[in-house]
Amino acid sequence: MSEAVVRPMTVADWPAVFAFWHEIVEAGETYAFPLGLTSDEALGWWAESPPGATVVLEEDGEVLGSAKMGPNRPGRGSHVGTASFMVAPAARGRGVGRRLGEHVVAWHRDQGYAAIQFNAVVETNAAAVRLWQSLGFTIIGTVPEAFDSRTHGRVGLHVMHLPLT
Amino acid sequence: MSEAVVRPMTVADWPAVFAFWHEIVEAGETYAFPLGLTSDEALGWWAESPPGATVVLEEDGEVLGSAKMGPNRPGRGSHVGTASFMVAPAARGRGVGRRLGEHVVAWHRDQGYAAIQFNAVVETNAAAVRLWQSLGFTIIGTVPEAFDSRTHGRVGLHVMHLPLT
Repeated sequence: MSEAVVRPMTVADWPAVFAFWHEIVEAGETYAFPLGLTSDEALGWWAESPPGATVVLEEDGEVLGSAKMGPNRPGRGSHVGTASFMVAPAARGRGVGRRLGEHVVAWHRDQGYAAIQFNAVVETNAAAVRLWQSLGFTIIGTVPEAFDSRTHGRVGLHVMHLPLT
Repeated sequence: MSEAVVRPMTVADWPAVFAFWHEIVEAGETYAFPLGLTSDEALGWWAESPPGATVVLEEDGEVLGSAKMGPNRPGRGSHVGTASFMVAPAARGRGVGRRLGEHVVAWHRDQGYAAIQFNAVVETNAAAVRLWQSLGFTIIGTVPEAFDSRTHGRVGLHVMHLPLT
C-alpha cells in the first residue's frame, strides 16, 4: 500500500466507486442500503457534506475503496461520529479497509469527536469485525437477526464503539 | 384514557405537535434531533411516509402525544422496525406514552415486522426505559456517553429490542 493515498471523493471518482458499491450492496452480505439503486440515487446515500466527508483510497490511479464519515446523530448526539466502508472486491486482502479505517479514526480525532460508533456491523462479516477490533473497537451489543444475509439468512448486527477521549 | 384515540397525524395537527416536540427537544433530556429547528424543518424529521407512519393521541379534542414508526433500515434490514415518541409535558403520567407504545407494537405486528429496535433511549430517561421494558423490550447494549443531557452531562444511549416472531 506504499503508493496508496486517501483523499476526498470527487464527482469524477463516483463511477468507479459506484461499480463496487453496487456490487457489494447487491451481494447482500454486509450493508443494509436500499437495493436496486441507480448511480444517482446511490450517490445520495454515499456522498457526505460537511461536517461529514467521503474519501477514496487510490493506488496507481485506481480507486480501490471508499469511506464516508460524520456525526452519528444530530444535536445532543453529534459528539459521536460514525462511518461506512466499501472495498472493491478485486482489492480485498490488500489492507485497503485497514488504511481507510485508520484514516477514519484519525479524522474523528482531528475533528474533536469523543467516540466513533458503528451502528450495524454484520456479525458474519468476520473480516470487518476483526479489523475494527484490531483498531480498538469493542462490541457494545448485537441486535439479533437484524440483517437478512443472502447466504446466511437473518444474522445479528453488532453495535461497535471506540472512545477517543 | 377511555376517550383517547390514536389516529394518523394530519397537517392540521402539526402546530399542536410541534409545540411539545420543540419544548421536548430543546429541553435536551431525551432526543438527539437537531436543535433550533423551525416548524417546517421539524416536520421533515417527524412526518413519516409509507411504509412508515406518524400518529397522534387525541383526547377530548386535544393532541397529547405523537409517535412515528417505520423500518429501522432500508434493504436487507427493513424487516426490523423502529419508532420515536413525544408526550406533551402537561400530559405526563396519564398513560399517553404507554398507549402510543402499545399502538406502535400492534402496528409493527400488523405490518409483519420481525422485531422493533430503539436505537437511542437515553439511560437517564427512566420513565421511558421502564415503560419499554414493561412492554417486553430488553436492553441489547448501552453506548456510553453518547447523549449530551442538559442536566446530567454525557450519558449512555440504550439500544432496546422487542422480537415479534
